[in-house]
Amino acid sequence: MPRKLAVASSPVRDLLALVNRPEVISFAGGLPAPELFDVDALRAAFDKAVSRRSLQYAPTEGDLDLRGHVAARLTARGLPTGAADLLVTTGSQQALTLLVTALLEPGAVVAVEEPTYLAALQAFQLAGARVVPVAGDEHGMDPAALAEVVERERPELLYLVPTFANPTGRTLTAARRREIAALADRHGLWVVEDDPYGELRYRGEPEPALATFSERVLYLGSFSKIGAPGLRLGWLRAPAELLRTLVIVKQAADLHTSTIDQAAAAVYLADNDLDAHVRGLCAAYRERRDAMLSALPSALPEGARWSDPDGGMFVWVTLPGDVDTAELLPKALAQDVAFVPGAPFFATVPDRSALRLSFTTNTVADIAEGVRRLGIALG
Amino acid sequence: MPRKLAVASSPVRDLLALVNRPEVISFAGGLPAPELFDVDALRAAFDKAVSRRSLQYAPTEGDLDLRGHVAARLTARGLPTGAADLLVTTGSQQALTLLVTALLEPGAVVAVEEPTYLAALQAFQLAGARVVPVAGDEHGMDPAALAEVVERERPELLYLVPTFANPTGRTLTAARRREIAALADRHGLWVVEDDPYGELRYRGEPEPALATFSERVLYLGSFSKIGAPGLRLGWLRAPAELLRTLVIVKQAADLHTSTIDQAAAAVYLADNDLDAHVRGLCAAYRERRDAMLSALPSALPEGARWSDPDGGMFVWVTLPGDVDTAELLPKALAQDVAFVPGAPFFATVPDRSALRLSFTTNTVADIAEGVRRLGIALG
Repeated sequence: MPRKLAVASSPVRDLLALVNRPEVISFAGGLPAPELFDVDALRAAFDKAVSRRSLQYAPTEGDLDLRGHVAARLTARGLPTGAADLLVTTGSQQALTLLVTALLEPGAVVAVEEPTYLAALQAFQLAGARVVPVAGDEHGMDPAALAEVVERERPELLYLVPTFANPTGRTLTAARRREIAALADRHGLWVVEDDPYGELRYRGEPEPALATFSERVLYLGSFSKIGAPGLRLGWLRAPAELLRTLVIVKQAADLHTSTIDQAAAAVYLADNDLDAHVRGLCAAYRERRDAMLSALPSALPEGARWSDPDGGMFVWVTLPGDVDTAELLPKALAQDVAFVPGAPFFATVPDRSALRLSFTTNTVADIAEGVRRLGIALG
Repeated sequence: MPRKLAVASSPVRDLLALVNRPEVISFAGGLPAPELFDVDALRAAFDKAVSRRSLQYAPTEGDLDLRGHVAARLTARGLPTGAADLLVTTGSQQALTLLVTALLEPGAVVAVEEPTYLAALQAFQLAGARVVPVAGDEHGMDPAALAEVVERERPELLYLVPTFANPTGRTLTAARRREIAALADRHGLWVVEDDPYGELRYRGEPEPALATFSERVLYLGSFSKIGAPGLRLGWLRAPAELLRTLVIVKQAADLHTSTIDQAAAAVYLADNDLDAHVRGLCAAYRERRDAMLSALPSALPEGARWSDPDGGMFVWVTLPGDVDTAELLPKALAQDVAFVPGAPFFATVPDRSALRLSFTTNTVADIAEGVRRLGIALG
């Protein structure tokens, strides 16, 4: 059997099992809050969108109306984009895997932040790539460290969640974005800017997309965190030549993304104010983030550190001393609270004292109670 | 740039461009007839299915209700199946690519019928596999020829559309199915039984699925031809161990298939009689097949041969003499009729005198007129 069958387990999936008991307050997911979904407007959009055309096969590139709406929103956010610059994907996870298929041979080197999104690490692993971490700090990846890695390892690809990173919540500064883009241009390095969370900002001013600084930056966006993930809609912005290759790879992957889901999203974007909806999401998530950040000091032991994210969904906690958060998890579950241990987010040497908390899916009251339970489990 | 970027073109896609002029009668597509879609019932199903749950992320394996309905239908058709034996995929195209990713290393050998489904050939090509054809006749692949190829080439995988094949319309006999399954068992060969058309039978009795004869046969089914392709819903039946691996590969591919499309299909299957709908499709497609088969003799030149399919969507035509159907296509388009030249369906040495006609999307009157135009183009 081939190497690929050696991919033994899937931490995200295994962890989804944790959140099933109703009495558990789960900070483990990376899910948007279902009570904030715009259910009635989405139902109306599907009602309007179902047609003989939307039930039929469709071009691989994606629905032209949807691409137009997405392009207009990206342009309004400062990244000039036309519909023809975009490929609609079956979630941005698919965009990542299409890029891996198109750009990486087995043995290719991929540079990443560490810790980083674990399903990206799995996609690189499935492709037989070698993942090399690049050092950073609370302002994101360090361009000097990247320059050193590029020199030494000659990576094909750099993968980044530059805004409100998963799992750390960190945001790369504008100055560093500029330096990293220049480095990519100079060395012919492809950069994946994975941006599912960028619109979920609760404080401060938006940073320019990394893709504004270089054609080598491939921008991935998603409807999952600002609309609803059940539609599996993402988009990829890339130069024309690479886009042509990606269309061929996508055709082999699933011919095209659901025609009806694309049509419903296009109707939804035409008939509703998504910016207003996102402002509502931000107001709710800001309160939940604040509830978590104000509860943590009295629950966590002396010497614990945690991130203070300007947006997104996650707080990253590092505990003091020689502790393994994977071993703490059963104790937390015994207290009816869940988190994700930090180790799987590392490509190389894991920091076993870290854990990820998501603040999006619980009420302010449940967040306070959940953090209290976490404190008992750690005590 | 990696080898994969050398995949230059995409015949299916390029050909979709042909059908856009409204005056063209196109036999080129492989599309179901949109006027036969059960639009109102599907709209009602989406209306009922949209909910906070169906807008959220979901398990990679797929919606349990949908898998239950599909398992019951497969069981009723003679292939005993439980919901746990199935993985829901984003169309059966995705099932094929997941299998390729899980089972094939670059350089692996894949045995195929020739001609065969061209997007399958492209998926094997993208994976860096070597495709080896196996001889057959109007009753499908010849088991003795397969035995010889297995002995000589040691393929990892055999890919087959055993019922109403694309592009030939051929169906493998029950006796040959049994022999091929036994061969697979004996040699540890994986067999992909791609069955999008099996329910579209217009004559004769169903053959047992190849998968009824061996655990080595991986069965792929689809909602695209019996329901609607716009939902991108397929399913894969495989042994438990392989299914676990495929779930991991699918997680990297798109996390999961659209929650809302799966929920809508489950509602549709619960609230409607799909068997009755399929009987209606068969009645309409039977008339269209008959219209094509009765028009061909007077339109095609002396010495032309064509298949006489018991079901499915395609008639496969072979023209006499030293003719290249790719060169005939512009002449046909000048007469406002379209077909697919046969060459891209061959993995090795193409038969350039062949062409594929689909009879599903045109009325009986348009089929007669289209075949008349084809006769003029060939004249």
